[in-house]
Amino acid sequence: MERSETQHSVHRGVGLRYRDPQPTYRTILVLATMKLAIAQLNPTIGDLTGNAQQILEAANNAFNQGVRLLLTPELSLCGYPPRDLLLNPSFVAAMTTQVQQLAQQLPPEVAVLVGIATPNSTANAAGGKSLFNSIALLEQGEVQQVFHKRLLPTYDVFDEHRYFEPGLQSNAFTLDGVGIGVTICEDLWNDEEFWGKRNYQVNPIADLAQQGVDILVNLSASPYSTGKQQVREAMLRHSARRYQQTILYANQVGGNDDLMFDGSSVAFNQSGEVVARACAFDSDLVILEFDEERRDLLPGKISPSPTSIDEEIWLALVLGVRDYSHKCRFNKAVIGLSGGIDSALVAAIATAALGKDNVLGILMPSPYSSDHSIKDAQDLGKNLGINTQIIPIGDLMQSYDQTLEPLFTGTEFGLAEENIQARIRGNLLMAIANKFGYLLLSTGNKSEMAVGYCTLYGDMNGGLAVIADLPKTQVYSLCQWLNSVAQQEIALNHQNEQIANNRLSAITNHQGEIIPTNILVKPPSAELKPDQVDQDSLPSYEVLDDILHRLIHEHQSAEQIITAGHDSTIVDKIIRLVTRAEFKRRQAPPGLKITDRAFGTGWRMPIASRSVTVTTQQVRQSVKTK
Amino acid sequence: MERSETQHSVHRGVGLRYRDPQPTYRTILVLATMKLAIAQLNPTIGDLTGNAQQILEAANNAFNQGVRLLLTPELSLCGYPPRDLLLNPSFVAAMTTQVQQLAQQLPPEVAVLVGIATPNSTANAAGGKSLFNSIALLEQGEVQQVFHKRLLPTYDVFDEHRYFEPGLQSNAFTLDGVGIGVTICEDLWNDEEFWGKRNYQVNPIADLAQQGVDILVNLSASPYSTGKQQVREAMLRHSARRYQQTILYANQVGGNDDLMFDGSSVAFNQSGEVVARACAFDSDLVILEFDEERRDLLPGKISPSPTSIDEEIWLALVLGVRDYSHKCRFNKAVIGLSGGIDSALVAAIATAALGKDNVLGILMPSPYSSDHSIKDAQDLGKNLGINTQIIPIGDLMQSYDQTLEPLFTGTEFGLAEENIQARIRGNLLMAIANKFGYLLLSTGNKSEMAVGYCTLYGDMNGGLAVIADLPKTQVYSLCQWLNSVAQQEIALNHQNEQIANNRLSAITNHQGEIIPTNILVKPPSAELKPDQVDQDSLPSYEVLDDILHRLIHEHQSAEQIITAGHDSTIVDKIIRLVTRAEFKRRQAPPGLKITDRAFGTGWRMPIASRSVTVTTQQVRQSVKTK
Repeated sequence: MERSETQHSVHRGVGLRYRDPQPTYRTILVLATMKLAIAQLNPTIGDLTGNAQQILEAANNAFNQGVRLLLTPELSLCGYPPRDLLLNPSFVAAMTTQVQQLAQQLPPEVAVLVGIATPNSTANAAGGKSLFNSIALLEQGEVQQVFHKRLLPTYDVFDEHRYFEPGLQSNAFTLDGVGIGVTICEDLWNDEEFWGKRNYQVNPIADLAQQGVDILVNLSASPYSTGKQQVREAMLRHSARRYQQTILYANQVGGNDDLMFDGSSVAFNQSGEVVARACAFDSDLVILEFDEERRDLLPGKISPSPTSIDEEIWLALVLGVRDYSHKCRFNKAVIGLSGGIDSALVAAIATAALGKDNVLGILMPSPYSSDHSIKDAQDLGKNLGINTQIIPIGDLMQSYDQTLEPLFTGTEFGLAEENIQARIRGNLLMAIANKFGYLLLSTGNKSEMAVGYCTLYGDMNGGLAVIADLPKTQVYSLCQWLNSVAQQEIALNHQNEQIANNRLSAITNHQGEIIPTNILVKPPSAELKPDQVDQDSLPSYEVLDDILHRLIHEHQSAEQIITAGHDSTIVDKIIRLVTRAEFKRRQAPPGLKITDRAFGTGWRMPIASRSVTVTTQQVRQSVKTK
Repeated sequence: MERSETQHSVHRGVGLRYRDPQPTYRTILVLATMKLAIAQLNPTIGDLTGNAQQILEAANNAFNQGVRLLLTPELSLCGYPPRDLLLNPSFVAAMTTQVQQLAQQLPPEVAVLVGIATPNSTANAAGGKSLFNSIALLEQGEVQQVFHKRLLPTYDVFDEHRYFEPGLQSNAFTLDGVGIGVTICEDLWNDEEFWGKRNYQVNPIADLAQQGVDILVNLSASPYSTGKQQVREAMLRHSARRYQQTILYANQVGGNDDLMFDGSSVAFNQSGEVVARACAFDSDLVILEFDEERRDLLPGKISPSPTSIDEEIWLALVLGVRDYSHKCRFNKAVIGLSGGIDSALVAAIATAALGKDNVLGILMPSPYSSDHSIKDAQDLGKNLGINTQIIPIGDLMQSYDQTLEPLFTGTEFGLAEENIQARIRGNLLMAIANKFGYLLLSTGNKSEMAVGYCTLYGDMNGGLAVIADLPKTQVYSLCQWLNSVAQQEIALNHQNEQIANNRLSAITNHQGEIIPTNILVKPPSAELKPDQVDQDSLPSYEVLDDILHRLIHEHQSAEQIITAGHDSTIVDKIIRLVTRAEFKRRQAPPGLKITDRAFGTGWRMPIASRSVTVTTQQVRQSVKTK
């Protein structure tokens, strides 16, 4: 042991650099272990210099803590997903230049794994895509080695076959006698024991385990969805145990358009125990120690995971709004407050994301608005401490009626007139956003977006659809959770204790209630005609959301949904509505994605089509009539 | 020869079925050749029963003409592209049921190749996608064989790796002693001699040529883009000559959302000569004869191709509007007529697509509108013979001003107020569309969409963006072509000759002019403030369109564009505008695609990103400041 320790120490040069208050103890510890770190970074897509700066700062920080190997997420230099920026050769060339510069700027003693896209030099001769999704090993001022991702996800929001050729080789290198196996995101997601099926022909983990490495690293950009970290950790635990393999999983964090990356980078020892975890939904630098004698990771700092799905979603949406706003260079947001629960939740999220001084609520009552709508919206504004303004739209409604009178005379009040109201509000909100440089946040939920219970160019207006992936029942659940957390904080304040969490830190005015109770208990209504409520034309949201979940998430046919106990008339109607509303969804703003099947970049449906899932019925019918 | 002829005749049973006025001649001809047909079909996405009916009708028609083998396009049963409908297992199951039914309904003597998606039964055990993109050979009431597509396009609008596993085997079968090689669309697009590079590792054509087949068939769904048929035919000719191989290329026709398929199915003999061509932009059934002695195709009917790019684009857009409207169950369209060239062109296209009685033009003058705008729009309406209505928006503008006065007081007239005007018009058009069941067509061109010179929720409103992929210079070119064709028709009428073409058949009122001359010659203006013209804030459209083409189509960097002779300040400004307008394009309606790089389903850009192509400069700068 003496021999190898000295060798390592000299080679790494770690022990020499810092004064050590406990030289004897410290020396032994340093010599017997290798320090590693995970930089859980929040890159901006395409911002090569800014992202390089983040990596550099993390490396300097890690160096100061004696780290020998630093991991950064997948494509950390350009941010994930770079999408069609990858089709610009100058962008790829700039990445190559930037990573070489970065190598020179990094502390030479720290080996850093950086994610970049690299050219596939044999593409033209051998056939194949022109790029690889790669990890560069930077050390001693140079790019030492480049590893290519082997399994390329091409489903949901992922389009990696569009840009990348899969790597064919197992990726490993040796650092001071420690064997490091390198995998990139999807490379790890093919354990046929865990999934009960193979997702890809090859399994990079099995290959690396067979060739024998000390530490398996996985550099990821894995977007958040509800409950995903539990799945990740169960899968990582399974692989760690199956191959008796330490695993370091480094994930990206931050919001990029519709996707939120939750971070939660995590490390497992050979026994499949979590030895370290980065925080969820925030940047972090996690330090780990690898015991070179026992060839295993030592216990480190384990940040707690969110304790409920509601908390997860809340943190995800707050991060999503904050990052979308700031990365688009907005500091302030404007929201139309109807007095309903959707806009109330969006206003609370925006307040937590941007601060109460940066959120403006606009109340736009019409003659059809109920008295309580205004009061409820004002109560919400008070709870959040945000500025609100009232702009009645009655005059504009009259003006539209008069303007359209030559064409509409003799017709009855209907959908056209309802939509005009929504579109007046949409116009006013956009005018305010344009005038003062606010980001308009839209407030539609997933249930509405699914059945088209929303007005295109009206309430759908906005730069970001904050709760577009939350079914209405989830909106209620999240609001209730929010109020319960607010009550806990009040209770904690009463006990003069330090506030246990800062999830609501930006919402300072509330008195234990954020969403006014009346908003939670009244029947949902669009208030576009007298005494209208949502359930005039829709089933209860419990029924609707269950049908929609089966249809959208579980890809069930009409027959299967009916067999599960739903009324066939309702099921047929909902399927028709969902199919017909595709033209609206195509023009919706990006919606923050919190499920495995969101309407957005991963939802690719034809518009001019005859049926979505009623085909079973069609076939049944065609058999009958034959 | 005697022997084999008799055998074929008996086996096929063709000569026995029809009375033949010239028995001796006819018998020899029939016995020595095999008849084949290409059904150039226009399917509706997802309409399995309707599409099956189309195939059945084509097969009955072909049977009546003695055809032995009928080709239909790629995925002809579900239409291309089915997109995420393929993720519904019930949809795939319905396809299997439907194709089996179809096999029973078809005339048993005709072998029919039908495109369907089929399950990959080994996906779970071996890894891989759960479907194949397949061709089923139907004959004698059954599915005889199934062939899988080998090369899967995953670029631009194509997402085939998202759904399909590539087939690994060469696809061929024998019909009455004639060897048929089966390829599906992309399978044919990998001739490294023609392209100067390999696009994929394998080349299905080379494999089939090596194993030896008499006829190579290619079943395609290849979308239109300008000049594409010339490329296709050059490529097919090259492959036919290289492998001395007859090739039958069967393409889909029709509009499906943003994509128009131009048909133009074509057949080449072994010498690489075109022996038959289906018409462009319309359904067709092409009959071909294969000389079994010479093992080559005989000359057949060759439909002419469009004679200019303008004519191609015109036919494509007319088809795109007609099919999108009808497949979405609209018969009528409404268009805002500004008096400008964009809305004039869209109105002309809509009139040709839907008929003059089914197009309504709405003129919405504001106090900033010039007198000639109204007259120009009215002249256009007269030329097209469509109904027009005038709805002034001055009162609504005042009403918005008054409503917003409490917030806007003290601010200057600016972009917010300009946008309000565009959004009033957008609201009025949507109100009319909603009230009377019209499809609203939007009129923005590609140059505007690129730089964001358009108002989201205003003039961008609509179900379909008809000219969204035409740069402004192309809009002018197409309008000039349109007028020249109109003049030709008038001239032909004067000579009392039959009108040579019916490209403008639905536009019957014109007197040799469709787009009024004043619309063609006046400077383009949005007329959102006094004396405004586009070139106040943009370079000339010639300069703008060249910069945009380099940026968007050629993926050039700022440096390259400047090196090509453009002013660096303008280039930087345009790149900034293009990057910043991404949020608008994300919410645009589907736009009819006529180029290889349209803003739409094949344009996948991040919104919250730092730069698109200025990275070269960034790097240059970072080198300087280092």
